[in-house]
Amino acid sequence: MPRYRLLIEYDGGPYKGFQAQNDVPTVQTSIERAIKGFSFEAVRITCAGRTDTGVHALGQVISFDLEKEFEASVVRDAINALLRPEPIAVLEAERVDETFSARFSATGRAYLYRILNRRAPPGLDQGRVWHVKKPLNAFHMAEAATHLLGLHDFTTFRHIECQAKSPIKSLDRAEVIQVGDEIHLHFAARSFLHRQVRSMTGTLVEAGLGRWHTDQVKAALDAKDRTRCGQVAPPDGLYLTEVVYGSEPTNF
Amino acid sequence: MPRYRLLIEYDGGPYKGFQAQNDVPTVQTSIERAIKGFSFEAVRITCAGRTDTGVHALGQVISFDLEKEFEASVVRDAINALLRPEPIAVLEAERVDETFSARFSATGRAYLYRILNRRAPPGLDQGRVWHVKKPLNAFHMAEAATHLLGLHDFTTFRHIECQAKSPIKSLDRAEVIQVGDEIHLHFAARSFLHRQVRSMTGTLVEAGLGRWHTDQVKAALDAKDRTRCGQVAPPDGLYLTEVVYGSEPTNF
Repeated sequence: MPRYRLLIEYDGGPYKGFQAQNDVPTVQTSIERAIKGFSFEAVRITCAGRTDTGVHALGQVISFDLEKEFEASVVRDAINALLRPEPIAVLEAERVDETFSARFSATGRAYLYRILNRRAPPGLDQGRVWHVKKPLNAFHMAEAATHLLGLHDFTTFRHIECQAKSPIKSLDRAEVIQVGDEIHLHFAARSFLHRQVRSMTGTLVEAGLGRWHTDQVKAALDAKDRTRCGQVAPPDGLYLTEVVYGSEPTNF
Repeated sequence: MPRYRLLIEYDGGPYKGFQAQNDVPTVQTSIERAIKGFSFEAVRITCAGRTDTGVHALGQVISFDLEKEFEASVVRDAINALLRPEPIAVLEAERVDETFSARFSATGRAYLYRILNRRAPPGLDQGRVWHVKKPLNAFHMAEAATHLLGLHDFTTFRHIECQAKSPIKSLDRAEVIQVGDEIHLHFAARSFLHRQVRSMTGTLVEAGLGRWHTDQVKAALDAKDRTRCGQVAPPDGLYLTEVVYGSEPTNF
């Protein structure tokens, strides 16, 4: 049975997250409906990162099987045509062998978090950034972020309903970059816990506002206690930017 | 009477252009309603560039008078608060003297046009880019753009309903830059004719697609004939980015 791998971009704003649920719009539901629209096959798709309500993707990866054979470019164009006018686009499609799973074959995931740090609210970027009015110190945020790098028990930064077997993860990138009136946080890891990026971002903002000393971020991590997490950043500013498989080159 | 100058950002998507009209949403109507909301004064605002339906602004400038005195920062914050949740934001506000007009004092205007040049439609940037599926040659577009630079009769690139007294304008910047899978066109001039940027952009795309030789763009300009214009680009990708006054520094 032919298996396909697709690279996907979407605006998470109108969706109750990636994962299919009854009676609410989800990214998965829309894509599966489009696949059925051209192939007449009811498939279940697998994704690399199950984004929450309102979270965006620039580089989500999905995989699925079809009974019939289609050219990968036909799959891409047909899904794009049937998805109009929804804000979901298939950037690339390719045939892969049956050992490939968008979720289980992934060896790296990267997220971007965009904070708009100015007095004025966003105009064009409403729903695509977290608007923090008070001035943030990006250097303090960057310093605090270094404490999160490496292998740790991330219980403090994990949603209480997270279903991962272990809270121990290795964080490979945690970078804070000022870009005009925005602050961009870049995170990369083999995998993340549920709400981990938003929990880390909200906590780093406590350091950026001067409400927390940078050492308190380390103390919160070391406490392995969810109640020690700072605020949790809203979904608006979060983007799944890239998923890596095996030895493929990465932009991390 | 105190006069105020405001720097404005907006998503043009939900609006029938900047200028107030009866019974349709416009940027002007929304801003004037917000001004009335805190000052209880019915004002008419003046803008630097009357953007069309669906055209965006990152750096629109408006001016208006109030009878009462308000701190400029209060004007900015009050309008922003009253505009929520509309995608319009006041970035800066300042008191100016009574000789200032957002429209007539402006000595330069800059626009950006964003083309998404890839097979897949936009996901996150729906309504914010012009999606051109066929590959564009940015070098040919840049070469064709040089023919538009300088002082010309721009009748070819002017909407038939344009109300400017003269079609003669000086174009100071016409640059074409490839940015990933986007092509950005930057234009700057003292002022533009109605639809000029979209008419020039659509015509440059004819050169980028190879349907026109770059010399044909020059011939179309020289013809001073609206029927010789190429296609007119849609509003989605157009942004008023900056307005300059007198000897102020510019980012052009």
